[in-house]
Amino acid sequence: MTVTINDVAQAAGVSKGAVSYALNGQPGVSDETRERILKIAKDLGWKPNLRAKGLSSAKAFAVGLVIARDPRLLGTDPFFPAFIAGIETTLVEHEYALVLTVAASADAEELGYRKLAADGRVDGVILTDMRVDDSRIALLQGLKIPAVTLNRPETSSPFPAVCMDDTEGITTAVEHLVSLGHTRIAHVAGPQSYIHGRSRRLAWQNAMSKAGLEAGSFIESDFTAAGGLAATAELLRPAQRPTAIIYANDLMATAGQSYAQSLGMTVPGDLSITGYDDTELASYLNPPLTTIPADPLLWGRVAAQVLLSILGGAPAEDVYLPSPKLVVRASTGAAPSRPKN
Amino acid sequence: MTVTINDVAQAAGVSKGAVSYALNGQPGVSDETRERILKIAKDLGWKPNLRAKGLSSAKAFAVGLVIARDPRLLGTDPFFPAFIAGIETTLVEHEYALVLTVAASADAEELGYRKLAADGRVDGVILTDMRVDDSRIALLQGLKIPAVTLNRPETSSPFPAVCMDDTEGITTAVEHLVSLGHTRIAHVAGPQSYIHGRSRRLAWQNAMSKAGLEAGSFIESDFTAAGGLAATAELLRPAQRPTAIIYANDLMATAGQSYAQSLGMTVPGDLSITGYDDTELASYLNPPLTTIPADPLLWGRVAAQVLLSILGGAPAEDVYLPSPKLVVRASTGAAPSRPKN
Repeated sequence: MTVTINDVAQAAGVSKGAVSYALNGQPGVSDETRERILKIAKDLGWKPNLRAKGLSSAKAFAVGLVIARDPRLLGTDPFFPAFIAGIETTLVEHEYALVLTVAASADAEELGYRKLAADGRVDGVILTDMRVDDSRIALLQGLKIPAVTLNRPETSSPFPAVCMDDTEGITTAVEHLVSLGHTRIAHVAGPQSYIHGRSRRLAWQNAMSKAGLEAGSFIESDFTAAGGLAATAELLRPAQRPTAIIYANDLMATAGQSYAQSLGMTVPGDLSITGYDDTELASYLNPPLTTIPADPLLWGRVAAQVLLSILGGAPAEDVYLPSPKLVVRASTGAAPSRPKN
Repeated sequence: MTVTINDVAQAAGVSKGAVSYALNGQPGVSDETRERILKIAKDLGWKPNLRAKGLSSAKAFAVGLVIARDPRLLGTDPFFPAFIAGIETTLVEHEYALVLTVAASADAEELGYRKLAADGRVDGVILTDMRVDDSRIALLQGLKIPAVTLNRPETSSPFPAVCMDDTEGITTAVEHLVSLGHTRIAHVAGPQSYIHGRSRRLAWQNAMSKAGLEAGSFIESDFTAAGGLAATAELLRPAQRPTAIIYANDLMATAGQSYAQSLGMTVPGDLSITGYDDTELASYLNPPLTTIPADPLLWGRVAAQVLLSILGGAPAEDVYLPSPKLVVRASTGAAPSRPKN
């Protein structure tokens, strides 16, 4: 249990302000009161911490980001480095720092936020990877830490959201493939516990239905290359193979493309492929990948701007970023007249 | 100019300790002296900051990492996310946070370190991307911030280095290619202003010489996919094409492999290719990439451990990590009996 200035104030029967003056060596309390407060603080085991000190003067001038992934997997997702870079482009202008914590488990994640709050290391946080039932909203409200979320969570949230719609890109990818004559269009999805994993699958499903097609095979994968390969192997096994696969990110799409080629299939001759992210490598693959350029740099930049605005007293209003558009490259082409079965 | 406790102590003619007691509301100075010190501090414009407060009691319980890259390029280098993840695996055990700053220019970088010091946001820093003439060593000595460097810089440095030798992997790659009958082995290097860009080139050059071969074409590139493609295009233009290319990272190697394939060349039939990093995608390419697995996660973990050790008073001793070994996959094969010229 952390002993707060509040605890000291109650024990001493004085105001929080008086405790703050005493502990910070500022005028405003008599020497007698100061000594008494210092003694009570010591007896209670009060320790100076950044937040307690911040009460009198400085703010933390830092924002927090807790990434709930296995640290070993952090290096494989191209989203975070670019997103963090985007945050930094804003923070550097305002002389704020980013305090980054990686949490390998749900418990560690909650502890991460509690510590950011208890130590007063940050003035606010940015929440990514919004979940279907997201307990972080209530946690941060309880801790009284201002926050910004990436997209509006399904849970009711008092925090402003910075929204980027990923359904339009997927919808256009389906329309693009349909216009090329494809009817068997499969989807390799991200984890369905993530909102962006689910919204991409629903966009694919709805666009197929709108085109009068049956939503074909769907496999829930995990955004990794290994997952993309396994999903592709499963999709290409049965007699009724898809002629096109829409992947929820570039990493899975690239592994899928390589795997299909290793079976002797040509891309896009036998199989058309689309990704999501437009990672640096996407346009340097053979063939270059048709994909949807998420703009994590922009997202990070704006999320940090919105957080700093509300810290400055601005009202919490959602911001809508432009929807990323499909970039057509050589990994998509006309549906094969005789699909390899 | 930041007014320090030192400045206040000099102006008041008292010790730094006395100023610290006065400003932190601790016993140890008379009330008269305390009031005088507070007045002088106010007149000089002294502002409480985290470091000044830290003098008396709390440490920052954070380490700093200033990455000097264009923020937009941060997302493309697979090293940093994994390295940061490695740092976090250590910090999380010791309840330390990571304060991350991205600096887009040399000036911004120096300012970044100065601010970490002035604000007392961190107890120490980790230095990456060591340069041939590295001014950061003197800067940090001046700022009195403890540091750890990745590899020992050429500049004399009082800071412990965490060393991972990258020459053995490159040397083995050359030997592997020579054993497959290659004699025209080119190198696509990273920037030669980076020590690791240069050490990989020298390793290639020395291994070629040791094998009795002329070091073939060498192109200085920039670790990006675009740079890898441009360098490969240049290498494959002349009549005397190389039959193998050693790239200084996987990103350049992957772009080079795709480019060669797009010309109708086969890998490894017409051209063998090796990378460096063993990124997640390397084993999922077509063909899978022969490469050298740098272990940025381990490097980050140990660098943070060494930094926390010296913060705890341990002597500054260099640590040597195991040299990464070549992983042979399908992108390297026998030299063509009749190279395509």
